[in-house]
Amino acid sequence: MTDTAPRPTLEAVAARAGVSRATVSRVVNGGDGVREPLVERVRKAVEELGYVPNQAARSLVTRRHDAIAVVVAEPETRVFADPFFALQLRGISKELTAYDNQLVLLLTEGRDDHARVGRYLAGGHVDGALVFSLHLDDPLPELIQRAGVPTVFGGRPGWSGDRRGVVYVDVDNRGGARDAVRHLAGLGRTRIAHITGALDQTSAVDRLDGYRDVMVDADPQLIVESDFTPAGGERAMRELLARCPDLDAVFAANDLTAAGALRVLRESGRRVPDDVAVVGFDDMLPVTEQTDPPLTTIRQDIEEMGRLMARLLLRGLERNTTDEGIAGAPSSVVLPTTLIRRASA
Amino acid sequence: MTDTAPRPTLEAVAARAGVSRATVSRVVNGGDGVREPLVERVRKAVEELGYVPNQAARSLVTRRHDAIAVVVAEPETRVFADPFFALQLRGISKELTAYDNQLVLLLTEGRDDHARVGRYLAGGHVDGALVFSLHLDDPLPELIQRAGVPTVFGGRPGWSGDRRGVVYVDVDNRGGARDAVRHLAGLGRTRIAHITGALDQTSAVDRLDGYRDVMVDADPQLIVESDFTPAGGERAMRELLARCPDLDAVFAANDLTAAGALRVLRESGRRVPDDVAVVGFDDMLPVTEQTDPPLTTIRQDIEEMGRLMARLLLRGLERNTTDEGIAGAPSSVVLPTTLIRRASA
Repeated sequence: MTDTAPRPTLEAVAARAGVSRATVSRVVNGGDGVREPLVERVRKAVEELGYVPNQAARSLVTRRHDAIAVVVAEPETRVFADPFFALQLRGISKELTAYDNQLVLLLTEGRDDHARVGRYLAGGHVDGALVFSLHLDDPLPELIQRAGVPTVFGGRPGWSGDRRGVVYVDVDNRGGARDAVRHLAGLGRTRIAHITGALDQTSAVDRLDGYRDVMVDADPQLIVESDFTPAGGERAMRELLARCPDLDAVFAANDLTAAGALRVLRESGRRVPDDVAVVGFDDMLPVTEQTDPPLTTIRQDIEEMGRLMARLLLRGLERNTTDEGIAGAPSSVVLPTTLIRRASA
Repeated sequence: MTDTAPRPTLEAVAARAGVSRATVSRVVNGGDGVREPLVERVRKAVEELGYVPNQAARSLVTRRHDAIAVVVAEPETRVFADPFFALQLRGISKELTAYDNQLVLLLTEGRDDHARVGRYLAGGHVDGALVFSLHLDDPLPELIQRAGVPTVFGGRPGWSGDRRGVVYVDVDNRGGARDAVRHLAGLGRTRIAHITGALDQTSAVDRLDGYRDVMVDADPQLIVESDFTPAGGERAMRELLARCPDLDAVFAANDLTAAGALRVLRESGRRVPDDVAVVGFDDMLPVTEQTDPPLTTIRQDIEEMGRLMARLLLRGLERNTTDEGIAGAPSSVVLPTTLIRRASA
């Protein structure tokens, strides 16, 4: 700021209004628990002196709004139907609240609305953005990059544009998938099928790669593309049983898909794990404990992923403000996975 | 605006960059599908001419951001656990998207964060707010009123402050409750209990009043306070059975509570509806069809409530902009309810 004239202080307002500093502070920050006549006196003093409250003053200096946008690149209905997003948001909300930052969730009906989301982000209403569930051909990352909004992605973004400065939090999808398939192979299974996730998302591609790392010469008939939903899992399992009635194991790209597959296996009279062993991915509670039988899966800590995304973003913003330099720049993080054995494999 | 110098037009930018109007428009609105060299040329022309894009120009004139905040005055975890909020948000999202307004959902960990929500609303980041699930002692309505943000409430606000200009969308909670209890009385039931909702919310108070309208001399032992959650419904039902083992009907303040009550009744060996008839409120699908037995309830159209809240707010903002005058001012709406008979009563 070039204007160096002294700004009126909180003390000056308190003196003029004839109240304590604490009272001025309470009024300026919303006025909870202050009697109306006092509120009026403080307001009058604020106006007469041209006092700029701390919050606004700080925002002028640091250009911070203490607000972070969260964008889930899925239709609003899926955000509320898939517990994965609720868990990730829980981690984000806890972390942002701990640092008194407002979580601003931008909901959409679908991808057609992403240009509008980009405009809101570019409009200077938030300090940064947390973006997850990106699909490969989504224009959002480029819109965000152009808007110049500091961003941390949930999951490695798959787009082919300029990747400099891209920070993401991911889980070791490929390594986790390898563990799942090795576990099935270790049980003596040889006809191991894979129900993929939505292959326009890097998490699904990485899990398929992990499957192929172990099943080097896999029969292509054993791989069916799906979409991470329970209904998609049912459809994929029916197709697999029609194609390969001799299959003896299934690695599903997530737990919701695995739950759908288990229902179809039961309908078709296959016993799990005796006839067909099943492994999921995520360890989404309570889903994995409530399936019949309970689901063996690859655990990732979804809530912690959300918390870490928020932490990296806030640290990056702090660095921008304090000019700490490149040494403090956050870098991407890939979290490990763990095999959780239950009854299904 | 006092500055009347002609602003450079979209056409002028197109001419200078040597591209079509459509290309300029696409670049200005995010740049989807425009090749990078063209994007650069348009950007250069925009800078040289000092062109202000439509969106920003419109925002300068109308002070519109085309963004509406939604505040659910519950902790983030409850927003994602209770399907009521997902339904209301679905209605809001559809309506806002139809008018190309961004839905900005402000999540919190609890009431301690409402002062921060008030600051965000006062910060000029949105054109208006939709606020629901208010509790009686919540400071939020007053913070919002002070911030001067046009607001429509979901459910009649219960606070005692200045009520001028307060607009809400509600459902006829009292009339619906009367219908529920009259239905039970019509089945010949005489010991009709009531499990209330959270009594710091007007919806719960109104439903209790409706119960009392019919059960004029109700035994106070037949009324147990609860909180709209399934676990609360279980606790309340246990207490009712201990207090009044001769009860023959229950009116629960919502379907989630009724579902909890049904579980406890089954555990205790009571047959529903033979021994105890049960009626809920909301008609929350699929909950009401999946209880054992399926639940008789009072239907309200939750998604339509959300849609109507958004419509009233947008209409009010439009009126402010066009100076249509008080004739177009939106007023509060109370929607009717319907008794839906299933097996439980």
